[in-house]
Amino acid sequence: MTKISTNEIDIVKSEKSRINDVDFDNLVFGRTFTDHMFYCDYVDGEWQQPKIVPYQPITIEPSARVFHYGQAVFEGMKGYKDDNGDAWLFRPNDNFERINKSAARLAIPEFPKEYFFEGLTTLLNMDKAWIKKGKGNSLYIRPFVFATEPAISASPANNYRFMIICSPAKAYYTAKLRVLFAEKYSRSANGGVGFAKAAGNYAAQFYPTNLANKKGYQQIIWTDANTHEYLEEAGTMNIFFRVNDTLITAPTSDRILDGITRKSVIQVAEDHNLKVEVRPVSVKEIKEAAANGSLKEIFGAGTAAVISPIAAFEHGGDVFELPELDNSYALQIKDHILNIQHNLSEDKHGWRFKV
Amino acid sequence: MTKISTNEIDIVKSEKSRINDVDFDNLVFGRTFTDHMFYCDYVDGEWQQPKIVPYQPITIEPSARVFHYGQAVFEGMKGYKDDNGDAWLFRPNDNFERINKSAARLAIPEFPKEYFFEGLTTLLNMDKAWIKKGKGNSLYIRPFVFATEPAISASPANNYRFMIICSPAKAYYTAKLRVLFAEKYSRSANGGVGFAKAAGNYAAQFYPTNLANKKGYQQIIWTDANTHEYLEEAGTMNIFFRVNDTLITAPTSDRILDGITRKSVIQVAEDHNLKVEVRPVSVKEIKEAAANGSLKEIFGAGTAAVISPIAAFEHGGDVFELPELDNSYALQIKDHILNIQHNLSEDKHGWRFKV
Repeated sequence: MTKISTNEIDIVKSEKSRINDVDFDNLVFGRTFTDHMFYCDYVDGEWQQPKIVPYQPITIEPSARVFHYGQAVFEGMKGYKDDNGDAWLFRPNDNFERINKSAARLAIPEFPKEYFFEGLTTLLNMDKAWIKKGKGNSLYIRPFVFATEPAISASPANNYRFMIICSPAKAYYTAKLRVLFAEKYSRSANGGVGFAKAAGNYAAQFYPTNLANKKGYQQIIWTDANTHEYLEEAGTMNIFFRVNDTLITAPTSDRILDGITRKSVIQVAEDHNLKVEVRPVSVKEIKEAAANGSLKEIFGAGTAAVISPIAAFEHGGDVFELPELDNSYALQIKDHILNIQHNLSEDKHGWRFKV
Repeated sequence: MTKISTNEIDIVKSEKSRINDVDFDNLVFGRTFTDHMFYCDYVDGEWQQPKIVPYQPITIEPSARVFHYGQAVFEGMKGYKDDNGDAWLFRPNDNFERINKSAARLAIPEFPKEYFFEGLTTLLNMDKAWIKKGKGNSLYIRPFVFATEPAISASPANNYRFMIICSPAKAYYTAKLRVLFAEKYSRSANGGVGFAKAAGNYAAQFYPTNLANKKGYQQIIWTDANTHEYLEEAGTMNIFFRVNDTLITAPTSDRILDGITRKSVIQVAEDHNLKVEVRPVSVKEIKEAAANGSLKEIFGAGTAAVISPIAAFEHGGDVFELPELDNSYALQIKDHILNIQHNLSEDKHGWRFKV
């Protein structure tokens, strides 16, 4: 495996930090970027010299394949700062492995592990001041890779750019969500790329989500494309249902993202001796459970939102409002995960990674 | 509707044409671009001043949504030159309508018709020398639009760029193709974006196509994601099967592109009094027809390739070689379409458009 050390990253520091221009109390998600960015180009069959430079626009041919064929994948991860000022990541090796799994499905060359971790930690140490202390504060980290080769034939590119950019973040969703169960539109096909963080998976959801927004729903819970009878995921989140005292979530598949927050929720629930079932979840059973009062909670799980409680859902014109609970599993599990992320509690599964 | 005239396009001419550096006899598809490009930015809810400038790299934020969420659609069209030196397009209004149909599905604002046609014809007249006379020569024209807004939240962008770039082309496929019928991987889902020329549809095909390439097949004929029993399209082409003297092709749907060459083939076949059936085509019937000798031809139809005859297919380990025919429908229809495109024959359906 390729080995690099920090002094092998070509570094150009920004002359002056922009951090004092930023209102950290009023951040809009994903619009403010830190002082530096990491990048590495794939040319002539090899990843070249990795670089860290001031955050800035890039120059790219209009014929670059990413604009035409969507050959691009990404990851979402977060950095946290504890009360001592140490910075932490959460299960970063899972993000590393997943970006390469996504890349392989889109015929993008895999990125070397040493480059990923050395690039990530060097960048985060340079921009450490942008990670603010306190639960609810984090640095959203976006590794991504895209096809740069200037040639518009419909085949995998020969050239790519891998980048990491970082954006300080507050909580992604502030209010409880209202969601629509999909009945017509679909997110992914059997044998498709739904399990990958492929760029095209996201744009495909925007139009149906706009329609849902107009009806007063912020997100769609996607169902299987074939029958629309089974609840799969929410596009930026996996989905959990609590029926009585059992948490239920769909198994991962080639249609459903293997979410890192999803599997952390399952583990934390088991650590709390909660009953968890990973199995197909039908629209029918969730509507029946909502009608008879056994459906206690629905929540989304994802890196950006961590845990997003859901207040209501609609399907087939039927609207179900979920109760307010004293003993919410969502809040209990969210608190547990946030405490691990912010180095406030024991980390018995070794999920924290010191930057 | 917004109206513009040529003198409202902001034009910067290249100082010196690159045309004399180009070997027109040895063009690789999609790698050489003409002297100029057209672009128009969508900002503040409006398409701004359209521009034509020398073909050059663009500058874009790494946080532009196209890199992360694949919010991008495109068209493929061709310009032809007749013996008098006049330049022609083929059914360009269909490309215009389709790019906006694709855009709508990806929550991208529609592009105004006048901007499209005025931009296209002005650009083509400026770069007319790049369209070479003779059947087999064409100028491949690539209109495309992508999300430029620098914000990595997973929602539709507020800013976009529409562009047209042009690339001189020889025939796209030179030899007859060998194809694999898909059994495991899929191109699109019911309720998805398969009908749109969405960027992400293409990257999703690269890995399965790489696997097919390794088995000696250049393309995959995609089947329905649910059962893999019905033949749909080839990703860059629609597909026609000739069984005895009947041409059969799948109906368009939300999974299958409404190809302009596809519908031209259907019309030309009818003009030649050939029997055409637009209906679901099963893998089973095509294998049986191949086995009993009634399958005469398979060919692809698309803008880049026009008509691509197929020499053989594999499904489930069974390989079928197709016969060489004296009276190939594929070649007959291809010649008919090329003659219309190059202004060599009557254009009774009004498909030619003078630039």
